[in-house]
Amino acid sequence: MADLQTLKVELGDRSYPIAIGRDLLRSGFDIRPYLPGGDCLIVSNEIVAPLYLQRVTALAKYCNVHSVQLPDGESSKTLAAVQTVIDELVRIGARRDATVIALGGGVTGDIAGFAASCYMRGISYIQVPTTLLAQVDSSVGGKTGVNHGGGKNLIGAFYQPELVLIDTATLGTLPEREFSAGLAEVIKHGAIADAEFFDWLESNMQSLLKRDDEALATAIRRCCEIKANIVAEDERETGDRALLNFGHTFGHAIETSLGYGEWLHGEAVAAGMLMAARLGGLNRSDQDRLRQLIAAAGLPVEPPPVGAGRMRQAMQLDKKASFNTLKFVLLRELGDAYTTTEYSDSLLSEILQSAGGKHDL
Amino acid sequence: MADLQTLKVELGDRSYPIAIGRDLLRSGFDIRPYLPGGDCLIVSNEIVAPLYLQRVTALAKYCNVHSVQLPDGESSKTLAAVQTVIDELVRIGARRDATVIALGGGVTGDIAGFAASCYMRGISYIQVPTTLLAQVDSSVGGKTGVNHGGGKNLIGAFYQPELVLIDTATLGTLPEREFSAGLAEVIKHGAIADAEFFDWLESNMQSLLKRDDEALATAIRRCCEIKANIVAEDERETGDRALLNFGHTFGHAIETSLGYGEWLHGEAVAAGMLMAARLGGLNRSDQDRLRQLIAAAGLPVEPPPVGAGRMRQAMQLDKKASFNTLKFVLLRELGDAYTTTEYSDSLLSEILQSAGGKHDL
Repeated sequence: MADLQTLKVELGDRSYPIAIGRDLLRSGFDIRPYLPGGDCLIVSNEIVAPLYLQRVTALAKYCNVHSVQLPDGESSKTLAAVQTVIDELVRIGARRDATVIALGGGVTGDIAGFAASCYMRGISYIQVPTTLLAQVDSSVGGKTGVNHGGGKNLIGAFYQPELVLIDTATLGTLPEREFSAGLAEVIKHGAIADAEFFDWLESNMQSLLKRDDEALATAIRRCCEIKANIVAEDERETGDRALLNFGHTFGHAIETSLGYGEWLHGEAVAAGMLMAARLGGLNRSDQDRLRQLIAAAGLPVEPPPVGAGRMRQAMQLDKKASFNTLKFVLLRELGDAYTTTEYSDSLLSEILQSAGGKHDL
Repeated sequence: MADLQTLKVELGDRSYPIAIGRDLLRSGFDIRPYLPGGDCLIVSNEIVAPLYLQRVTALAKYCNVHSVQLPDGESSKTLAAVQTVIDELVRIGARRDATVIALGGGVTGDIAGFAASCYMRGISYIQVPTTLLAQVDSSVGGKTGVNHGGGKNLIGAFYQPELVLIDTATLGTLPEREFSAGLAEVIKHGAIADAEFFDWLESNMQSLLKRDDEALATAIRRCCEIKANIVAEDERETGDRALLNFGHTFGHAIETSLGYGEWLHGEAVAAGMLMAARLGGLNRSDQDRLRQLIAAAGLPVEPPPVGAGRMRQAMQLDKKASFNTLKFVLLRELGDAYTTTEYSDSLLSEILQSAGGKHDL
């Protein structure tokens, strides 16, 4: 734990720390200050539990530790999964002083966090993200929730954890495809807010892909800093927090059109960022840099051939939309994003054609 | 609307008004300032919709007005009902600027408010309570949620409305039993916080039972004032808000033991207040006054014969409990309540015996 780093998400009485370091789970990071008492329920899944459940159980030894495992994957991010977690909390007799520990990727964190937010109108929870995507993005900022047939994340809450505990060693067991999907959100942070970090990513992508410890720690820390600052200014996304959705309007449409789980979230966001860059008229050389970095990370640079009509239909229900006009996050240049409802409809149509026209509705 | 009265629940940027008056629905109270735009969904039930849906639809004419009706009764306060409301919001394509209007009693308000809290992580909602219980208690303060097989209100959120609109004329159509159940919460407000109001209730119970307009307006306003002040100090019930649970630990146990819906919530609270008064060692003359006022309101003064064992079991999971010790709200005297975990176990056992011993587990 010599390389333990701690950041803070500043949200008044809902502030909380993010601890980042290699082997935090193995070395007995002290989570006692974040466990009010009584019971804790570790929520994980069938992939992650065999790898890390034992270690987290040991960390939480000050409580009565219980655990529940959910199925893996975006398709399991449903209200039924939330009900499963709540049923388990009821079964163990969890009271208001109980804590939920989300051990896994973004899906686990979103489900477990939402269950914590609504059990007895809110009990504590701790995020222990084990995927790159969750470590750099979804575990920080308190967005919890599940999908609905009509759209992604349509049911949820803004609900902040007590602690985010990031053990970079857990990335050692992450499949390559999932690792790349996480890199999409890493690239996003550079693209929207930090040109220097974007440069750094161009120089260090190979080290990241080799999962070099130092490179990973640097990237994760910088992403968490950027996200923590944005969330501190706009917890409930009434303003600049929306910048974090760069690539997500197109990305969600890709996921909805394909059906959840076909493409990973990060893959859809990767293709979506390039579509948004084009819609915003980002200069050609910056578009090329973004494309090359995304390709270097092993991510798709084109949407899947789902058909422009289906994409368009999916975007009508995207929750970022308001007043019947879509709101997009666009780039002025690398490192400088803005939101707008003003865009060229014809350019949007042209971009959507890259998803193919055969299945138009 | 000559007698329109307005209070405010002071919660910083979540403050909101409570408007109270006769015929506010009929006379076109202006709710436009509380409708951000786009769509609104009126959530009501099969009993209330035929009576008031048309009027509320007219009030909300600045929006695209949609409506959905839920089954009536406490047994319908489930996650499935929340899903029904959310499905409808998705079906109409509701966006972040949409508003939910809860038209009905406490069950409708609790379901609709929780659905609003989690649809897209929170959209606006307006409470239009049409029962006495909802007007004096459940529509104010932002407690939303549904029941779980393991206990009442185990799934929910603290989520404040934009407006509470109380038309006292709606009480004209309320069945007698429901009206009495609402009086239990009225009596509770006097018992915990305002001895003078308790006196007033003793003098005016007959006028209230005759649904005298002036008496109703006075009682509703005073209850809302008391509740608004308590909620303003302690929105998330970490302290004094718990005083509003007077009678509820026993009351919830009664409801859980009987199965939801057998007794009305207010009936269970009525019997529960007397059990709590006894547990707290309230002086005999005040206990008698409380008993007489509850009886005068047409409410039960004894628990149903469900068996002490079943009551005890139900209380283990009551969400007011913490640290494996029950927390009770007790009275020093009428108008002065406090919370405590210190009480006589033998006296508690004795009190529970009043629920009968035959079905002990």
